[in-house]
Amino acid sequence: MQLIDGKAVSVRVLKECKVQVEELVKNGCRPGLAVVLVGDDPASRAYVGSKERACNELGIHSVKVELPAETSQGQLHEVIASLNEDPDVDGILVQSPPPAHIDESAVVLEIDPDKDVDGFHPVNVAKLVLEEPGGFIPCTPLGCQRLLGDYGIETKGSRVVIVGRSLIVGKPMAMLLMSRGLLGDATVTVAHSRTVNLPEVCRSADILIAAIGRPEFIGAEHVKEGAVVIDVGINRVEDSQAKRGYRLVGDVNFDEVSGRCRAITPVPGGVGPMTIAMLMSNTIKACSQRHGVEVSKLA
Amino acid sequence: MQLIDGKAVSVRVLKECKVQVEELVKNGCRPGLAVVLVGDDPASRAYVGSKERACNELGIHSVKVELPAETSQGQLHEVIASLNEDPDVDGILVQSPPPAHIDESAVVLEIDPDKDVDGFHPVNVAKLVLEEPGGFIPCTPLGCQRLLGDYGIETKGSRVVIVGRSLIVGKPMAMLLMSRGLLGDATVTVAHSRTVNLPEVCRSADILIAAIGRPEFIGAEHVKEGAVVIDVGINRVEDSQAKRGYRLVGDVNFDEVSGRCRAITPVPGGVGPMTIAMLMSNTIKACSQRHGVEVSKLA
Repeated sequence: MQLIDGKAVSVRVLKECKVQVEELVKNGCRPGLAVVLVGDDPASRAYVGSKERACNELGIHSVKVELPAETSQGQLHEVIASLNEDPDVDGILVQSPPPAHIDESAVVLEIDPDKDVDGFHPVNVAKLVLEEPGGFIPCTPLGCQRLLGDYGIETKGSRVVIVGRSLIVGKPMAMLLMSRGLLGDATVTVAHSRTVNLPEVCRSADILIAAIGRPEFIGAEHVKEGAVVIDVGINRVEDSQAKRGYRLVGDVNFDEVSGRCRAITPVPGGVGPMTIAMLMSNTIKACSQRHGVEVSKLA
Repeated sequence: MQLIDGKAVSVRVLKECKVQVEELVKNGCRPGLAVVLVGDDPASRAYVGSKERACNELGIHSVKVELPAETSQGQLHEVIASLNEDPDVDGILVQSPPPAHIDESAVVLEIDPDKDVDGFHPVNVAKLVLEEPGGFIPCTPLGCQRLLGDYGIETKGSRVVIVGRSLIVGKPMAMLLMSRGLLGDATVTVAHSRTVNLPEVCRSADILIAAIGRPEFIGAEHVKEGAVVIDVGINRVEDSQAKRGYRLVGDVNFDEVSGRCRAITPVPGGVGPMTIAMLMSNTIKACSQRHGVEVSKLA
């Protein structure tokens, strides 16, 4: 069994990003990422902090916009409009989840698709489906694809089962892996809460991707001997022994499953670190495209 | 084995459409469909003719724009722009395929998404993925879904295998059937030319949808006993005995497969007639939405 080390791959991606940022700066443009945080959810604040640190380490211009929890939809839209106009900002994201009174899907529509580094704007959703280059692919699916690629796990002709049909992970992952091309061409099945006999469906997978948000839901009965397992889940479960009173587990029961696998991602240290790395990569892509400056592909 | 009579279902859909058109007309708006034909491909001309006749039978205002084969991209865009502005036109489609010098995907972008009754504009592609109502779903997948619904074939929890990952049929069909809801909630697999061991993958299907464009490609070895088979293919094969020198066959070898099926669509008379019926339905939807006039749901 091989452990897929997302931390190590993310470090490699970030090193590439650093070289690309330097190339862009030499050509007179420094990539910039704006992260908007509405309210003061501690987990959101921590995520925003990690994104800021990643930017700083790469030399990406980082703009943090902190808005009070009572910010109105209209006020948030105005903030986005000004970031759309800001020539120093190449990527914009609004940290999820915003407070309950904010309509998140309406917010996404306000972001300039050319700056939508999260890949959630309908223009980018459609580009992924239509296999048009130049769009932005959501960071988590993109990170999973990169993990497979870096570990030499061929997707072409492979049977992939994705558990979960969310708009952020399951569906874009399906579109990405069924697309034509080197890291695509898979035979993809999307399973979900309505799937009958889920273990059997999952056992047909050469590559099983768990993205359901249920702690340790995927057990040995879901995994074919020799399969590759990618665990997208990050769930907090109470643990009185842990320092913070909780520990992080994936959607996969690692102890039960890992013995059967050809390769598996741990949680933490698997898909998680890739998400921020791909956000940096998308921000560089946005800058490169907006300024018409090519960067070297190092992958 | 039950024969799924697409002709009969399409007649039912068109009857509903007729009632809906009358409702709209009573409210002061008559739906209008504009079909643009570039060049004089005989098959395209025939398709355009059928669409025109369907409009006439329902009382839908029909606009046929015939352009010479040498029409430039820019000229075509101008025609579309004027149809976008035309208050009597609710739906616009450009008959496919246009002459080779025309960039079809650029043409689609010119059509007002609210008039894009083919459902090929990125805005509508994204709405389907994001499960937003109000968008337009491509007519062929929509017709297949309606056939399943009218024959009481439950999709929820069913294993659906779609053979073919085209942007017009395979991918939207997958999105439609995996969406949440009464005629969705299926566990969907998309197979294609790169799929390894296609017969085995297909045999996992409760509902097998063939959309590959290869005459009689799907044989007995692809079909589980008791499966439902939907044949989207319409292929011309030479036949010296036939009046026109060819006959139409599907992607499924009907004679070989039909004995194993719970239900199957014939070619012709299966999916084909549904496509035009759903185009009429989409045109009515466009009119209803543009004018804010609700019509009764008769399905």
